[in-house]
Amino acid sequence: MIRISVDAMGGDYAPKEQVEGAMMAVSRIKDIEINLFGDEKTLRALLKDPTRIRITPSEGTIPMSEKDPIGAIRRNRKSSMAMALSSVRSGEADAIVSSGATQALIAGAHILVGRMKGMKRTAIAPIIPSVDKTGTILLDCGANLEIRPEHMVQQAQFATIYAKEVMRVDHPRVGLLNIGTEEGKGRDLDIEVHRLMSEDAHLDFIGNVEPKEVLDPPCKILISDGFTANIVMKTLEGTAKGLGKVLKQELSRGVVGKLGLVLSIGNLKRFRARLSAEAIGGAMIYGLRGVVIKAQGASKAYGFYNGIRQAADIVRQDVIGKVGRVFEEGV
Amino acid sequence: MIRISVDAMGGDYAPKEQVEGAMMAVSRIKDIEINLFGDEKTLRALLKDPTRIRITPSEGTIPMSEKDPIGAIRRNRKSSMAMALSSVRSGEADAIVSSGATQALIAGAHILVGRMKGMKRTAIAPIIPSVDKTGTILLDCGANLEIRPEHMVQQAQFATIYAKEVMRVDHPRVGLLNIGTEEGKGRDLDIEVHRLMSEDAHLDFIGNVEPKEVLDPPCKILISDGFTANIVMKTLEGTAKGLGKVLKQELSRGVVGKLGLVLSIGNLKRFRARLSAEAIGGAMIYGLRGVVIKAQGASKAYGFYNGIRQAADIVRQDVIGKVGRVFEEGV
Repeated sequence: MIRISVDAMGGDYAPKEQVEGAMMAVSRIKDIEINLFGDEKTLRALLKDPTRIRITPSEGTIPMSEKDPIGAIRRNRKSSMAMALSSVRSGEADAIVSSGATQALIAGAHILVGRMKGMKRTAIAPIIPSVDKTGTILLDCGANLEIRPEHMVQQAQFATIYAKEVMRVDHPRVGLLNIGTEEGKGRDLDIEVHRLMSEDAHLDFIGNVEPKEVLDPPCKILISDGFTANIVMKTLEGTAKGLGKVLKQELSRGVVGKLGLVLSIGNLKRFRARLSAEAIGGAMIYGLRGVVIKAQGASKAYGFYNGIRQAADIVRQDVIGKVGRVFEEGV
Repeated sequence: MIRISVDAMGGDYAPKEQVEGAMMAVSRIKDIEINLFGDEKTLRALLKDPTRIRITPSEGTIPMSEKDPIGAIRRNRKSSMAMALSSVRSGEADAIVSSGATQALIAGAHILVGRMKGMKRTAIAPIIPSVDKTGTILLDCGANLEIRPEHMVQQAQFATIYAKEVMRVDHPRVGLLNIGTEEGKGRDLDIEVHRLMSEDAHLDFIGNVEPKEVLDPPCKILISDGFTANIVMKTLEGTAKGLGKVLKQELSRGVVGKLGLVLSIGNLKRFRARLSAEAIGGAMIYGLRGVVIKAQGASKAYGFYNGIRQAADIVRQDVIGKVGRVFEEGV
């Protein structure tokens, strides 16, 4: 059995959607059992079917708007997030899924789960939608604002193993997000990363990729530093949101247009669903001793279920063990 | 009369669309005259109505894919781009519009037009679409990859004057593109720029703005360094392109869907038009002794006309003179 800890109290719709997501997960995935951390009474009321799900009482929640993430974790060792993280460190669980505050989760993971041997920096790696429907790994979405080129090479190695084992891509290609495709483009950091990745035997590096191709890229993995990739992710989100507003305004114009809109509603729903982060799962935090998945703060049950499914896949494929062996070779 | 030089040979559809754009401009804007630089015979054949348009023969074109922009300008002083730029320096023209290679235009503008007194770095400032249809200035989209905080303050001052004089916004607000809205977010550069802009009397600075709001921002001006803003622009472009593909795939599904699509075609065209860079004009290069407008490489006649209209507005409002006076105060 794969044992998954769930921080049931973190997220915009916690704990209801988290508990429902957990029940959905055990009913669909036969080799997992779940430990829900949270307010016992509340969780008990929500947990209609306790098959392979138990509850561990915790005290307090880290707020989504937390400004001092390290302090919040240190002061709230009995919070659902801190206790769920600790259960991975102690070996009681194989993975943790949380839709709580991102920076607190990263800080907590550093303190309570610990960094993996040989990996110098953690990274957050969400999977973004792609036109071909298979998704693209985008990293680092915010763990490291200023970083050294060799750390980015390690992160790309991690993502390569993830893409092979979890996304089942035989030869995942890596592209460096940059403002031009030619070699020599970008900042000193980008030029040095380009050189190191070109020489790395573990990577199928295709060079620079412009964000003009962000939804239809020639590679499975798009990498940049933790500031830039975060900016890319947020611009993608903002553009999709803005275009949605404009599309709504324009499509409802005129009588003919309104009729067209009514007839298109099913297709428009499918369009929205394809872009939804819910279907994809969460973002893995790379570089820890255990499997830590950050599900979207706005996750509903289905999105949270997908985060659990992803965590189980990562454990089943022993991604962390495989990455560890590559890094030990490298040392 | 406002005198505008046009590099008629630069751009994906040059010179046909450039000449047509010029004819459209003189017919709609009564106080301008245009000097077309390019191959005389070709331009003569395309110029159906020479009212207030003359042709100055040039030799050769800077290719769109030029890798050595400075060298290209130095070796091709008789090219349409170089000659058109020089006509601004000599006082023969008030502005130049080109849809040629961006980096060559910037390099050429430095060499042949010259930097304005007091402004330390140039910047490229396109106007991106916004949900409220009025557009947002995004800068620096690629002139400076690594920059000092005080240069970004000057660029924001320039954009503020542009927004007042050309876009007719009474109190243009400035937002710093960042990965979080709280003060203290971002890299050392962002933190220092935040501090300097907060203290600057010429700016209505509202603090950090996340690119989640890129199409619907709480400010008229979005600023970052030349790497980041370029990444934002290209991510916006890539997301719009990718979503367009997905929308097309989904909207044409099923018989009902196909009928809905047919009825929505007029509205979808309007949707595309609202996002088109054509309607907005080009990007001004800030920080030069003259008005230099980079129209999109893929400009058609209407897009190029809008670049000319924008150039005429900037000259008419004496934007460069007004910016110069602010910088002289500051010195």
